Amino acid sequence: MNVYRTKAELKAFVASTRAGGKTIGFVPTMGYLHEGHASLLRQARSENDIAVLSIFVNPLQFGPNEDLDRYPRDEERDLALARECGIDAVFMPSVQEMYPQQPLTSVIVHQITGRLCGASRPGHFDGVGTVVSKLFHLVMPDRAYFGLKDAQQLAVIQQMVDDLNFAVDIVPCPIVREPDGLALSSRNVYLSALQRQQAVVLSRTLAEAEQWLHRPEITVEQFLKLIVERIQTAKEAELDYAELLRYPSLQPLEPQQKTAELGEKLILALAVKFGATRLIDNRIFESAEG
Amino acid sequence: MNVYRTKAELKAFVASTRAGGKTIGFVPTMGYLHEGHASLLRQARSENDIAVLSIFVNPLQFGPNEDLDRYPRDEERDLALARECGIDAVFMPSVQEMYPQQPLTSVIVHQITGRLCGASRPGHFDGVGTVVSKLFHLVMPDRAYFGLKDAQQLAVIQQMVDDLNFAVDIVPCPIVREPDGLALSSRNVYLSALQRQQAVVLSRTLAEAEQWLHRPEITVEQFLKLIVERIQTAKEAELDYAELLRYPSLQPLEPQQKTAELGEKLILALAVKFGATRLIDNRIFESAEG
Repeated sequence: MNVYRTKAELKAFVASTRAGGKTIGFVPTMGYLHEGHASLLRQARSENDIAVLSIFVNPLQFGPNEDLDRYPRDEERDLALARECGIDAVFMPSVQEMYPQQPLTSVIVHQITGRLCGASRPGHFDGVGTVVSKLFHLVMPDRAYFGLKDAQQLAVIQQMVDDLNFAVDIVPCPIVREPDGLALSSRNVYLSALQRQQAVVLSRTLAEAEQWLHRPEITVEQFLKLIVERIQTAKEAELDYAELLRYPSLQPLEPQQKTAELGEKLILALAVKFGATRLIDNRIFESAEG
Repeated sequence: MNVYRTKAELKAFVASTRAGGKTIGFVPTMGYLHEGHASLLRQARSENDIAVLSIFVNPLQFGPNEDLDRYPRDEERDLALARECGIDAVFMPSVQEMYPQQPLTSVIVHQITGRLCGASRPGHFDGVGTVVSKLFHLVMPDRAYFGLKDAQQLAVIQQMVDDLNFAVDIVPCPIVREPDGLALSSRNVYLSALQRQQAVVLSRTLAEAEQWLHRPEITVEQFLKLIVERIQTAKEAELDYAELLRYPSLQPLEPQQKTAELGEKLILALAVKFGATRLIDNRIFESAEG
């Protein structure tokens, strides 16, 4: 497995791979890899000639009061996992290598970034769009793998790829969960034992939501009220948002609309804080029709 | 010469060219080609295995009160010129083909777009950055050719390429002029005989500017005053801007600075309206030091 810390090394590897007519599968991450990432790595490995992982904690997508400095890192363990998953090349640039000068260019996706995490993290998705554009240009992947846990991120990247005609297929991958249902996240390590116990409220609420969604007379507003009440049963939980939206457009619904009449793909997305740790989870419903 | 009107056809051509290990030179244009474009096409032709021209009048880079609808077009003449220059493939998509849905993604370059044409044409360079990103992703060129007449556009594209790590070399090409000095432009056809006669004031002013710039005691402010007065000798001319800036950063200078002390690459950029027709021209000075 090759580990590259400079763009020049990576580009040389990509050029020789492309010249050999080989396909490239790419998994961009911020490191501190868990089984969720591993599932992406294995899929990239199995569907392409060459599998590339990037590990870069991108300052551009953190707000001034967010956890950039304390974002967890473990280079050695990450490389061991990558090796185990059969990754061919890891790109681990420094901030200086990725942003040698003050960047003046932003890749901005409008509308679908205005809600959910975009609303509570202004500028976050501009940072994501910009760094993913950079990485796509450096890695030139045929396929790039993103987890459905960050469903909004996935929708934003897919929109960006479609709008800007990037020559890459975006492959959505299912959420990987702990045995009790908690979605895997690098941020789970911050949780206290009590918070960890109660954090299961996100996945439980999502699981129960399906039957509520199918109640014949229930409206969007009533449905969300049930969701909020369910989250509040966890004493440590502080709700950031609970939204039911069209997916992947993330366009809002009318509060008085009956959920059973929504013949569309919908997403129920949750963000809940436990102390300073903010967890997200979601579930996509193919259609609310009973 | 192949003429492609769809992205799918173009992508198939690009894929087979890349697979054959051939280099691609690319000239993006809005058509109505003149000798200035021809010089770019010939250079792209001579420096690459395959030369690609795009012709697309991009609605995104026109303001609501600009000349999108009356922008001149002559497909037949453009294709004849492209053939004459040895172009291998022409991409001429419709607006519907380039923007099949309302685009939500913008590629925005900050700072250097705030002055000159960016100041009088808000949103213009967002449209340019976005469409050039799309075209780069579709054509995948090794080299792309841009005329120095649109010096700010060139600076914006170079910044975007550097910031986003596009795998393309931007090749700046010299301004091509009429025998009397007028810079070639698709918009020159709009000029009345009298306006055409007086339009030479731009290139004459730029030619005379060099000696003024080298006057030992002259300040930036005094220099620009001479420029403005010189433009105003043309009765039909209405000055939009005359600016002396650092190049390619397009950062401003202090008005009281002495030009002879500016040991930097500078650009003197002019935009002048003749009736409804807006002409631009510029000159880059390696250093103002006498």
